[in-house]
Amino acid sequence: MVVHQILVLAVEVRFLQGQRKSGIQEPLFLCYHVIFCWDATFFPYFCMVIIIASMDSKGILYLIPNKISEAPLDDVVPQRLVALVPTIKHYIVEDVRTVRRYLRQLNREVDIDSTTFYELNKHTIDTDISNYLDAAENGENIGLISEAGLPCVADPGNVIVAMAHRKGIKVVPLVGPCSMMMALMASGLNGQNFAFNGYIPIDQPERTRKLRDLEARSRKEGQSQIFMDTPYRNNRLFDDLKATLSPQTMLCIALNITSDDEFICTKSIAEWKREKLDLNKKPCIFII
Amino acid sequence: MVVHQILVLAVEVRFLQGQRKSGIQEPLFLCYHVIFCWDATFFPYFCMVIIIASMDSKGILYLIPNKISEAPLDDVVPQRLVALVPTIKHYIVEDVRTVRRYLRQLNREVDIDSTTFYELNKHTIDTDISNYLDAAENGENIGLISEAGLPCVADPGNVIVAMAHRKGIKVVPLVGPCSMMMALMASGLNGQNFAFNGYIPIDQPERTRKLRDLEARSRKEGQSQIFMDTPYRNNRLFDDLKATLSPQTMLCIALNITSDDEFICTKSIAEWKREKLDLNKKPCIFII
Repeated sequence: MVVHQILVLAVEVRFLQGQRKSGIQEPLFLCYHVIFCWDATFFPYFCMVIIIASMDSKGILYLIPNKISEAPLDDVVPQRLVALVPTIKHYIVEDVRTVRRYLRQLNREVDIDSTTFYELNKHTIDTDISNYLDAAENGENIGLISEAGLPCVADPGNVIVAMAHRKGIKVVPLVGPCSMMMALMASGLNGQNFAFNGYIPIDQPERTRKLRDLEARSRKEGQSQIFMDTPYRNNRLFDDLKATLSPQTMLCIALNITSDDEFICTKSIAEWKREKLDLNKKPCIFII
Repeated sequence: MVVHQILVLAVEVRFLQGQRKSGIQEPLFLCYHVIFCWDATFFPYFCMVIIIASMDSKGILYLIPNKISEAPLDDVVPQRLVALVPTIKHYIVEDVRTVRRYLRQLNREVDIDSTTFYELNKHTIDTDISNYLDAAENGENIGLISEAGLPCVADPGNVIVAMAHRKGIKVVPLVGPCSMMMALMASGLNGQNFAFNGYIPIDQPERTRKLRDLEARSRKEGQSQIFMDTPYRNNRLFDDLKATLSPQTMLCIALNITSDDEFICTKSIAEWKREKLDLNKKPCIFII
C-alpha cells in the first residue's frame, strides 16, 4: 500500500511539472487531486505534493515568435503557440499596439483586458525592467515577443532572458519564422559555418570597410556572412555592394520572406550588376 | 469587352501562379477554366493563358524542416507543412527510412508508394546528384528534408539549393525548429551578432586552439559563438570547455531542445565547474 501511494505521489509530481510547463495553472490540478485522490489515507501525501509543487513554483518565460509578413499565421507558427497565448497574462513587448493585434489574430480567446504589457524598447530605462519578471517569480508565466520574427535575435530582448537565468526562471523558446535562417537555407551558400552581423554601419568610410571585412572573412574562412540594413536604405546598400565587392563574390538577396511575393536569389556581383531590382522599404536579408 | 477579357486573363495568370506556389497542379486550373470561362470568344485568351502558364512551368524546391525531438509535431511545425507534404511526390533526403516515417507522421494522406526518394549523404557521389532536380525542370515540386531541423543548416544540402538557383528553379524555405536559434534565443547571450561554427575539431591541439579562438572572438567582437560536437563526445567537450576557457566566460548549454526534458542554462565557467551534468548522447548546443 505504501509503495502504491509513493508511486501515485511520484506520478503526481511529474504531472504537476508537466502542467506548469504547458501553462495550465493550480486550480486544475487541485480539481484533479480532489476527484482522483480523495481518501483520508492519502491526505499526508496530498500535502507533500502541494509542498513539493510549491518548491518549484516559479513561472516560465516563453519566447514567442512574431510573424514577418502578412502571410496566414497557420503558414508560419505551430498550433502550440496558438493554444498557449490565451494562458499567458503578462507580455514583455517592443510595441503594445502591434502585439495586441498579433495576439488577437493568433487566438480570439486571448483576453486583452486582463493582460498586462511591459514595454521594452529604446525608451525603456534599465531600472524600469528590474520588476519585469516579478510575475514569474510569483508563479505566473510571461511571454516575450519582438516586433518581427524570433525574440532576442536581431533585437535586445536578451537582457530579459539573462535576468531570467540569474533569477532561476525557466526559459522556453518556441518555433516560428526567422528571416535570416530562412534566407540562409534558401541561399545555397554555406550553412555549416555562418555569421549574422546585424545592421551595416551607415556612415562612410566604416560602411565600405565593414563590407570589405565581411567579404574577406567569407572568402578566407568559408563563413557565410548575413547582414541587413534599415529597409529604406536597402537600395543604397545594394549599390554599395555592387561598387565594393569583387565581381566573383556570390550575393544572396532575400526579400519579403514568407509573403506571396517572396524573392530569394543568389548570383555573382557581376550578374547582379546587369539586373534592375527595387528593394526600397521591403524587408531584406543580404548574404555573401 | 476587350478590357474585361484582358482583366480576366490577368486574374487567371495571377491565379495560376498562386496555384503553382501552393502545389496544386494543372488539372484543377483546367477545370476552373472550363467552368468559369467557357465561351467561344474566350477561346484565344484561354490558349494565351496556357502558353503564359507553361512559360513559367518549373516546379518549386521546398525546404522542409524536420523535427528535433519526439515532441508532438503540432508543437514544432506549422499547418502549412502538414497540408503541403501529400502534394509533393519527389523528396531529396539523407536517409529514406527516417523521412518515410516522418512524412507519415506529418500527414497520413502522404502516399509513400507513389513517392520517389533521392539520397543525399556522404555515400552520394557528385555526379549522382546532377539529375536530382529533373522533376522540378518538368514542372513538379520537390522537397528537400534533412535528418533533423532545417535543411541546409549544419548539413550539406546547400549543394542542391545552389544547383536550383543555377537552373532557375524557385526555392521556398518553410518554418520549423532550429536548435541553434532556439538555443541562442534562450541563452540570454548576444543575438544581434553571432556565428555558428558547426562541429569542433576532434583532435588536439586543434581542439583547444579552436576553443581559445572562439572565446577570443566572442570577447573581442561581442559575437556569440555557437558550436556543437557529436553527441557521444558532449561530456568530453564540456570537460574541455571547463579546462580551457576563462572562469568568467559565460557558457550556455542547451540540451534536448523542444522535448519534455529540455534544459537550457547559462552560467560562468566557474559556476559550471561546481555542477554535475551528464550530456552523453543527448542533442546539445553550446554557446559562449
